[in-house]
Amino acid sequence: MTRTHRAVETVNVTPGTTVVLAGWVSRRRDLGSLIFVDLRDRSGIVQLVFDAERGTAKSAMEQANQLRSEYVLTVRGTVAAREERAVNPKLATGSIEVVVTEVEILNGSKTPPFYIQNEVDVDETVRLRYRYLDLRRPEMQHMLMLRHRVNQSLRSYLNGQEFVEVETPILTKSTPEGARDYLVPSRLQQGSFYALPQSPQLFKQLLMVSGLERYYQFARCFRDEDLRADRQPEFTQLDIEQSFIPLDVFQSMMEQMLQGLFRDVLGVEIAGPFQRMSYAEAMDSYGSDKPDLRFGMPIVNLEEAVRGTSFRVFEDALAAGGTVRALVAPGCAGYSRKQVDELTKFVATYGLKGLATVAVAEEGIKSSIAKFLSEDELHNLVGAAGAKTGDLILIAAAGISVVRQALGALRLKLGEDLALIDENTFKFLWVVDFPLLSYDEDEGRYVAEHHPFTMPKWEDIPLLETEPGRVRAQAYDLVLNGYEIGGGSMRIFQRELQERMFRALGFTMEEARKQFGFLLDAFEYGTPPHGGIAFGLDRLVMIMGHGKSLRDCIAFPKTSSGTDLLMNAPSAVSTSQMDVLGLNLRKPNPEQPVV
Amino acid sequence: MTRTHRAVETVNVTPGTTVVLAGWVSRRRDLGSLIFVDLRDRSGIVQLVFDAERGTAKSAMEQANQLRSEYVLTVRGTVAAREERAVNPKLATGSIEVVVTEVEILNGSKTPPFYIQNEVDVDETVRLRYRYLDLRRPEMQHMLMLRHRVNQSLRSYLNGQEFVEVETPILTKSTPEGARDYLVPSRLQQGSFYALPQSPQLFKQLLMVSGLERYYQFARCFRDEDLRADRQPEFTQLDIEQSFIPLDVFQSMMEQMLQGLFRDVLGVEIAGPFQRMSYAEAMDSYGSDKPDLRFGMPIVNLEEAVRGTSFRVFEDALAAGGTVRALVAPGCAGYSRKQVDELTKFVATYGLKGLATVAVAEEGIKSSIAKFLSEDELHNLVGAAGAKTGDLILIAAAGISVVRQALGALRLKLGEDLALIDENTFKFLWVVDFPLLSYDEDEGRYVAEHHPFTMPKWEDIPLLETEPGRVRAQAYDLVLNGYEIGGGSMRIFQRELQERMFRALGFTMEEARKQFGFLLDAFEYGTPPHGGIAFGLDRLVMIMGHGKSLRDCIAFPKTSSGTDLLMNAPSAVSTSQMDVLGLNLRKPNPEQPVV
Repeated sequence: MTRTHRAVETVNVTPGTTVVLAGWVSRRRDLGSLIFVDLRDRSGIVQLVFDAERGTAKSAMEQANQLRSEYVLTVRGTVAAREERAVNPKLATGSIEVVVTEVEILNGSKTPPFYIQNEVDVDETVRLRYRYLDLRRPEMQHMLMLRHRVNQSLRSYLNGQEFVEVETPILTKSTPEGARDYLVPSRLQQGSFYALPQSPQLFKQLLMVSGLERYYQFARCFRDEDLRADRQPEFTQLDIEQSFIPLDVFQSMMEQMLQGLFRDVLGVEIAGPFQRMSYAEAMDSYGSDKPDLRFGMPIVNLEEAVRGTSFRVFEDALAAGGTVRALVAPGCAGYSRKQVDELTKFVATYGLKGLATVAVAEEGIKSSIAKFLSEDELHNLVGAAGAKTGDLILIAAAGISVVRQALGALRLKLGEDLALIDENTFKFLWVVDFPLLSYDEDEGRYVAEHHPFTMPKWEDIPLLETEPGRVRAQAYDLVLNGYEIGGGSMRIFQRELQERMFRALGFTMEEARKQFGFLLDAFEYGTPPHGGIAFGLDRLVMIMGHGKSLRDCIAFPKTSSGTDLLMNAPSAVSTSQMDVLGLNLRKPNPEQPVV
Repeated sequence: MTRTHRAVETVNVTPGTTVVLAGWVSRRRDLGSLIFVDLRDRSGIVQLVFDAERGTAKSAMEQANQLRSEYVLTVRGTVAAREERAVNPKLATGSIEVVVTEVEILNGSKTPPFYIQNEVDVDETVRLRYRYLDLRRPEMQHMLMLRHRVNQSLRSYLNGQEFVEVETPILTKSTPEGARDYLVPSRLQQGSFYALPQSPQLFKQLLMVSGLERYYQFARCFRDEDLRADRQPEFTQLDIEQSFIPLDVFQSMMEQMLQGLFRDVLGVEIAGPFQRMSYAEAMDSYGSDKPDLRFGMPIVNLEEAVRGTSFRVFEDALAAGGTVRALVAPGCAGYSRKQVDELTKFVATYGLKGLATVAVAEEGIKSSIAKFLSEDELHNLVGAAGAKTGDLILIAAAGISVVRQALGALRLKLGEDLALIDENTFKFLWVVDFPLLSYDEDEGRYVAEHHPFTMPKWEDIPLLETEPGRVRAQAYDLVLNGYEIGGGSMRIFQRELQERMFRALGFTMEEARKQFGFLLDAFEYGTPPHGGIAFGLDRLVMIMGHGKSLRDCIAFPKTSSGTDLLMNAPSAVSTSQMDVLGLNLRKPNPEQPVV
């Protein structure tokens, strides 16, 4: 019996048609002489009826008796309209059923450790250990399909714009900048190592030197970092690079690509052009370089409003070079002491010692610092904060980076608590004008904020030697709903400027040559102006699919300790495998087989 | 100046139109007051003219004087028809030129180590070290584009057939079967290792258990083998797996995909269905499991024809269980002693001690073994070989595997020497009915010819315990012009049969469970019948693009010692990198930096 239809296709078939279906038993109800089976395949579910009176062969009735959940079947049957009262409007195929004439059980199944359905009340480690069953659940199948369609839509745009997909190596060279590399010992050159790429950055720039002009790749990248809750040791980025296209044109191409993506895959229209905001403004107004602009509530600066008041905390903060800033929480004027204490506790985790409050209640202004300020000063403060009746002003006074971090986080918390966020909105934002360099206290030198090939803004280049910290980069992040989904820059394409950049990073030219010599060499042979971007595909899919974690968007993810619970990797390897690599373990692995 | 056209697009523009172009100086001819520059971009070449009399600004004339090969430019100019006598029919844009009004030199260039043109007379190591310049050559750009279009066409077919692309992990688990794994030491779990996948075999089977039904992936695969001339440590395969589709239907889908590919990318129609041949017949008739069927000249069996003759060499071979077989080389009856000696020397490298010859010349039969055979026996032999006047019969007598290998290789050599192969033909062949197992003398056990999940032919299953060597597999290779471009099988999907297979391989169930326990577990939860194929993408592109080696089809390949000459990988890593992994080198690498 060869399948003629998928389950949900039966609803479009003329009743009376014979079909052959294949799939899994989702549910079975045995009414004695009548057996109902929900048959599930990739498309969905259809109800099978085993009924001797309606033509089911005796042998098929007997087989139907043996069926259990997750058995694999092929059936031949006739599509029939259901009686009015039996119609199930919740099911795509709820108006019909398939009366089985013949069945073949292709495989049995043990009882699965959890139900194959959308909501499962089971620990994630069990889902990961039985990932092959977890992926059978409709919401996980949906996520796999979504990811596939995202991939197709993005490729279709890029192919249409004559970007060329090129595969770059996975076995490559360890580089000193950036995160920690995963290493791969070489057997043919014992004592030497390949590294897995953190990104194809160098290769994509070399492809521009090659004159390819427009490149893309869905590239696997690797970072051996201490894994936070929602990080993966390997991840996929859509990597794009182009030559000769001015920054603004390139950005609007990327906007078109994403508008097309949301239209194709979600049927959602995204307005363009996307909003742009400088890094400085994002940090000032949202305390974050990836502000979630689905709601307002920016951080307001109260320095001028409180200057000269007699409140010591404000005075001390300003005198120490710090700041006084606030959030205006709408409709929270009535917050209880307990509610405010909770917020205070929340910001304490970001190093902020307290929150001063000013409530603009119907009955007048109430403030935790009323006794330190005159009535005029209080009114002045409310005016400077732009607060309206019903609002609660939450004021932080401390060093600027603590204030930004604390109020930025508090803003997100309040946005959620106060239901200010529309979950069905997609709000894109370009964050631009990042600093090129930042000073690393540990290393005692400037380090690249993005990477050492990022182009400074033309007008800031003279500052490279005099005030490196003030140089802004031709770099940009694309932010969606408060997540950084992409980032990139225009690149340095002239050797002389690249050498100045390395000097600013404290590299001697000898060190730079040792690590990046081939790139410096390449830059001598006619490098075009170029730049690009990389999108985090896993995260983009997560946001589009309303996934709860990156793990939900990756077919076979790893835990936060980097473990694949399904395969049991990493694992011990045999001593002979170590021998051919010329390596010793410092502490033997008790599970290591001696071969 | 922002580019308005690519170089070759200028030929479709109305003369008189102003265009802005960007690209590289391919060639510059200085005639004093007149300077010609061939400007090259990704699309091709167009001639620029700097001519003060035709409107080139003085400053542009001065800049034109500075131009050298591979300088990067933007120019503004006017498209003009060339005079009749200046038309260059070899150039796509040979009927026009662009009279430059304005030029901007974006970057200079040193003199490249080799010419940026199709034929370069330079050692491949130089090309690989300067790969970014090598890839600038038109034939290499063509190969990158071809690969991109191959990729697109294959994806388009698979997407249309509802195959879903899924990415599977690169950091996975070491498995004992197959080639040697590349290992990746874990830092968070010191003493344990990930392995890079030799193929996504297990994952794609698990996706079938997940009910995905149709999967594909352009998968990076890794094998730490001693690299022969044309192998790469990492390579790309198009990996496909499906459930519920019968073998013959699946094979014809793959044929449609490839027919579409050759139509889309090369404009070549491939007739279907593709020829099928059993492994046994391929070995018998062509001495190879991947016969090149662009020409005939099969191996003929002369055992019956020579049995009972008095020639000791034939008699001894047959008595020892060997064979007597021959090739019939058309038009070679006149081969000199020296020419035959050369062929004899050639087959000696395959362990064959000599070749007996029978030439069917116009003037009669001449044979190196005439004195051992009667005239009747000679005529009988000529008849059995099917030789015609003008043919030369080349006879081998030895053990069967030596005869097959030697005559198989000799056939390919003669096919080339005698120009029997049409280089523009694409000849596909399915080789089927492979043996499931082969006996490994070293290990003293049977090993899987494909992998341990290959389904036996139904009718041969009972032989698994009695005559394992005779069991044929539901496995198939796809051969194109004598190269294996793909291979796959239907898989074992029932646990009981899988366990019998492991026993046939000499694994205790405990060993099997340790390595493949998760797969054996998965098979208990309703695994559908499934199977698939994997295509070697690098090789397919090489054949389609008439490339000389796999390295020509890979943007950044490695040498036969696994070295990336551009990046200088693998390389020494710092002691601190070894420290965090808990590893020691047995022999220190002299280049290891102490950090």
